[in-house]
Amino acid sequence: MFVLFRVVFTVTFTLLFTAIGFAQQQQEVILTSVERNFQRREWEIRDTSVNFDSAATWKVKLEEMHGGKQEGAHLITVQTEKLTIRIIPTRGMSILDVQSGDVRLGWQSPVKEVVHPKHIRLSDRDGLGWLEGFNEWMVRCGLEFAGHPGKDEFINNTGDQAEMMLTLHGKIGNIPASEVSVLIDKKPPNRIYVRGTVYERGFYGPKLKIITEVSTVPGSSTFRINDTVTNEGAFDQEFQLIYHGNFGAPLLEKDAKVIAATKSVTPMNAHAGKAVKKYDTYVGPTKGFIEEVYLLEPIADKDSRSMAMLHNAAGDRGASVAWSTKQLPYLTIWKNTAATESGYVTGLEPGTGYPFNRKVERQFGRVPKLKPGQSRQFTLDFGIHHGKDAVDTVAGKIAELQGDTKVKLHKDPPKVK
Amino acid sequence: MFVLFRVVFTVTFTLLFTAIGFAQQQQEVILTSVERNFQRREWEIRDTSVNFDSAATWKVKLEEMHGGKQEGAHLITVQTEKLTIRIIPTRGMSILDVQSGDVRLGWQSPVKEVVHPKHIRLSDRDGLGWLEGFNEWMVRCGLEFAGHPGKDEFINNTGDQAEMMLTLHGKIGNIPASEVSVLIDKKPPNRIYVRGTVYERGFYGPKLKIITEVSTVPGSSTFRINDTVTNEGAFDQEFQLIYHGNFGAPLLEKDAKVIAATKSVTPMNAHAGKAVKKYDTYVGPTKGFIEEVYLLEPIADKDSRSMAMLHNAAGDRGASVAWSTKQLPYLTIWKNTAATESGYVTGLEPGTGYPFNRKVERQFGRVPKLKPGQSRQFTLDFGIHHGKDAVDTVAGKIAELQGDTKVKLHKDPPKVK
Amino acid sequence: MFVLFRVVFTVTFTLLFTAIGFAQQQQEVILTSVERNFQRREWEIRDTSVNFDSAATWKVKLEEMHGGKQEGAHLITVQTEKLTIRIIPTRGMSILDVQSGDVRLGWQSPVKEVVHPKHIRLSDRDGLGWLEGFNEWMVRCGLEFAGHPGKDEFINNTGDQAEMMLTLHGKIGNIPASEVSVLIDKKPPNRIYVRGTVYERGFYGPKLKIITEVSTVPGSSTFRINDTVTNEGAFDQEFQLIYHGNFGAPLLEKDAKVIAATKSVTPMNAHAGKAVKKYDTYVGPTKGFIEEVYLLEPIADKDSRSMAMLHNAAGDRGASVAWSTKQLPYLTIWKNTAATESGYVTGLEPGTGYPFNRKVERQFGRVPKLKPGQSRQFTLDFGIHHGKDAVDTVAGKIAELQGDTKVKLHKDPPKVK
Repeated sequence: MFVLFRVVFTVTFTLLFTAIGFAQQQQEVILTSVERNFQRREWEIRDTSVNFDSAATWKVKLEEMHGGKQEGAHLITVQTEKLTIRIIPTRGMSILDVQSGDVRLGWQSPVKEVVHPKHIRLSDRDGLGWLEGFNEWMVRCGLEFAGHPGKDEFINNTGDQAEMMLTLHGKIGNIPASEVSVLIDKKPPNRIYVRGTVYERGFYGPKLKIITEVSTVPGSSTFRINDTVTNEGAFDQEFQLIYHGNFGAPLLEKDAKVIAATKSVTPMNAHAGKAVKKYDTYVGPTKGFIEEVYLLEPIADKDSRSMAMLHNAAGDRGASVAWSTKQLPYLTIWKNTAATESGYVTGLEPGTGYPFNRKVERQFGRVPKLKPGQSRQFTLDFGIHHGKDAVDTVAGKIAELQGDTKVKLHKDPPKVK
Repeated sequence: MFVLFRVVFTVTFTLLFTAIGFAQQQQEVILTSVERNFQRREWEIRDTSVNFDSAATWKVKLEEMHGGKQEGAHLITVQTEKLTIRIIPTRGMSILDVQSGDVRLGWQSPVKEVVHPKHIRLSDRDGLGWLEGFNEWMVRCGLEFAGHPGKDEFINNTGDQAEMMLTLHGKIGNIPASEVSVLIDKKPPNRIYVRGTVYERGFYGPKLKIITEVSTVPGSSTFRINDTVTNEGAFDQEFQLIYHGNFGAPLLEKDAKVIAATKSVTPMNAHAGKAVKKYDTYVGPTKGFIEEVYLLEPIADKDSRSMAMLHNAAGDRGASVAWSTKQLPYLTIWKNTAATESGYVTGLEPGTGYPFNRKVERQFGRVPKLKPGQSRQFTLDFGIHHGKDAVDTVAGKIAELQGDTKVKLHKDPPKVK
Repeated sequence: MFVLFRVVFTVTFTLLFTAIGFAQQQQEVILTSVERNFQRREWEIRDTSVNFDSAATWKVKLEEMHGGKQEGAHLITVQTEKLTIRIIPTRGMSILDVQSGDVRLGWQSPVKEVVHPKHIRLSDRDGLGWLEGFNEWMVRCGLEFAGHPGKDEFINNTGDQAEMMLTLHGKIGNIPASEVSVLIDKKPPNRIYVRGTVYERGFYGPKLKIITEVSTVPGSSTFRINDTVTNEGAFDQEFQLIYHGNFGAPLLEKDAKVIAATKSVTPMNAHAGKAVKKYDTYVGPTKGFIEEVYLLEPIADKDSRSMAMLHNAAGDRGASVAWSTKQLPYLTIWKNTAATESGYVTGLEPGTGYPFNRKVERQFGRVPKLKPGQSRQFTLDFGIHHGKDAVDTVAGKIAELQGDTKVKLHKDPPKVK
């Protein structure tokens, strides 16, 4: 009877979802839903298993992870002819990696497992606990705070002086999604969307919601992140959001290069200041390399779109990100070309600000607020470029954005009170 | 063979429980047992499925929660003709809410999920991490400590000066129950009990046990909490216990009122002191309302029973709590009539003390101790009252308790060293 | 179809493992594997169910724990004619206890459950959170740090002054194993091995790996721990490792005795200094007994093997440990003969150092380093001795190690800066 119940349950859900999809332009399958008190643990859909004609070949798969610190974490894999995208709903919808032919967006972190947040203590290691789960290609930093750990002092809602210890890069990357679904456009070109809602909320705390969406058109080498952050609280709410995209081999290598249209480059500290002239080129894995962080002011076109690209030494493999500077006015470049075992990686990080502690960011006016009920959208388009021509074309677009603007290289970091 | 094993296992357990029940006055079904290394994930019993005659209609259900931060949490629902009580064994047997007709004991917290303790870090937000899971109608604060966060300084068992950082409202609400069972009286009126044992213990720490029990008689609008706290350690053990009952709409609204038989009302801080005269009436949801906490000295009858009630503006819906002042000598009223999005809520909180930090409570002699092996019982009776007559009857009882005693309203908070 | 998939999946794995075993000297069954994204939850093997002839009688079983804080933890039980060994893969391969006839290696901790690490916050209670899960016979302390909590100040990899709050006894005992397997020698005497790999690693943190192994020959009363610690990072890496073996009744009792070949005995603090003369004898359960810790310099034979034994008052039941002082040069004896309810227990703890904070251990040159890629092995042999003759034989061996060396009893603890 127990088994029977489960079968009935499953059939009911299947009919329900099919029914939802049938009447609409999209087929939607719900993977996780707090509202329905429902979570799938294994599931697969492919072009040949849907109730509409799909010219393209694709597959979306959900699996549960097992062993060590990843026991119970979930992974969604979107596979098209050109791309394989792996998304972690259990870790705030972070993107583990993206593979396209011989190019992988991702890196080799010393953290090898898809760490379930139940094993993460953000306050560990004096506020650096986040680093024990950090191995994704793309992790969102935020939402209440997104930067370096340390004490923030601020005026709270009641007008009183308050303080709070902030932990590195915030909480959102270690909160499991409450609602997760996969949607497929029934009409060509059958764009596939993975959508997840993550809440960062508490009593006497922020009431922030982010609806994340990763989508791609089967057959293309591009994909899109399209997120919406909403303040569900009654008060104006500060928030921070940094798209911490991380690249290792094969794009990152000796003489790889990052190209960004920018007005200026400022080192985050004195150490980075010494190497600011070489901010855009990379060395190979270097034991003892100390991270260098550079703060850029991206230049955008008339539609507020800016662009940056990382390409390999030969200039025949690259990955680009394009975004709106109205949404994300700042770009951080994180160079950590350390030994392979330490994590050889560079970050291209469009954000609402830079990764200083929120206390510092607030001083510089880089902590935006959302009014009650207000939402902001963040759209980032990523491309993976194969061949010298493709890389050159993107480089040309970025050069066009740069135009005659000379890049100001500052040797000194910002003066922080 | 594996499947076979499970079937045999299940049958064995069923026979076992049936056998236990058959010989006794009660039918008992074990839902969770560390001793038996056993936990059910789905289960249901109803009046028509038991091996005795039940005149009343009722149902008890266990389900597992899914999605977001509630993945893996369990929920027990007791449903009678008059009441629906939802209990969370995973969160220390807290009571999520109680529904009776159009009255709900409960509130709309910004925390919407039944948060599994694995996602709670009590030390977060400088000791306020508890608030990220707080959305229950009734949560017990305790047992080692129950009040505000901050450093406590005390003399430890070895006679040395010691100190420890305490976190808000203690640990018991974020510890999953070790033993959980449902019991039903075989004889009319077939009282239903949900019993859960929660341990708060550690090496070089307290060895406290609480056996919680929620029970109701099918057909009535009343229910009872009947808890027993035991010190299983070798030393006298301090403990604190506050029954943090939280009410929102529909009982709480503009001009709702709390009635309590009390000798005095003292504000917890200067801010609350300004509004002490209006301590017993409520405003509607008010953006920017800062919490007001009032400390009451309840008056009891000759059997040491005191009583308090919250009723709506019209005075035709109410909820009451009656308890022994020998068991719980203090009553705290927490007013947090903030904006709906922030959590519009008031707390009626009988306790062994007030919610100051344990350091303060100790100064005022409000931290009781249990000798080795000693137990204390705590019985609270709750009623839900429909109609003006019913509310007036309870108000009359409380007025009788109050008698001629004039309520002393203190404007100043207690002087805390 | 879903069910079918699981069956196929299971069969595939079974064939795979059988195939692996068939070609080798050992039959290996994988219980957990991050690499294969695989974890068993229930499983059993016995001498009659293998594809080779086993003269001995034995059984190995995996089960999942349920209820309270142990929900989801796993337990492996190795059962031979002489020994029952219970290992906790979810808690860093700690050994819960070992039973041999009427002797149990283990103790009665106030912590009664096999606590899943998701419920442990090491930084709780000012760095003593580890104690809320502490109830094993053998728990490894380490690997990045292994001693008392508190701030460590040190020079980091980049040559800068750094500091970090350390928590009691380190992390390794609260990290679930990533790879777990059971191996059985196909040839007599059919030694059984339980092997587990645990990683303690993070970005900007240590990259330490420990392959743990517990093994026994069916029919014998001895068993072996054989661990290998490897530095997978690019830099020289400090590490600490203490084998925190804990014994209660029946071995520990009034007039029980610990025998160790040692050059000297030094109290860890002034309190222990007062009782240094009685460092090797025990009182019965004593309410208010404050722990005494003694630091020993073990004497080894020409093969660097030292030995220690705890035996009961009658001298007819004992447990011994033998190890290499090249691997583990130090021995700590922890006496905590407190009341039964508090945890009546003594620890025999061979280690790479003593359990001071790492800051102190470093001052005394007791924090070893591993070069990149370097491994160190740790082999400990345990015996359980029944009868006066058996105990006397071991005592004789230890006396032989001691020889004419007089034990220096220091009254004062080491001078710590």
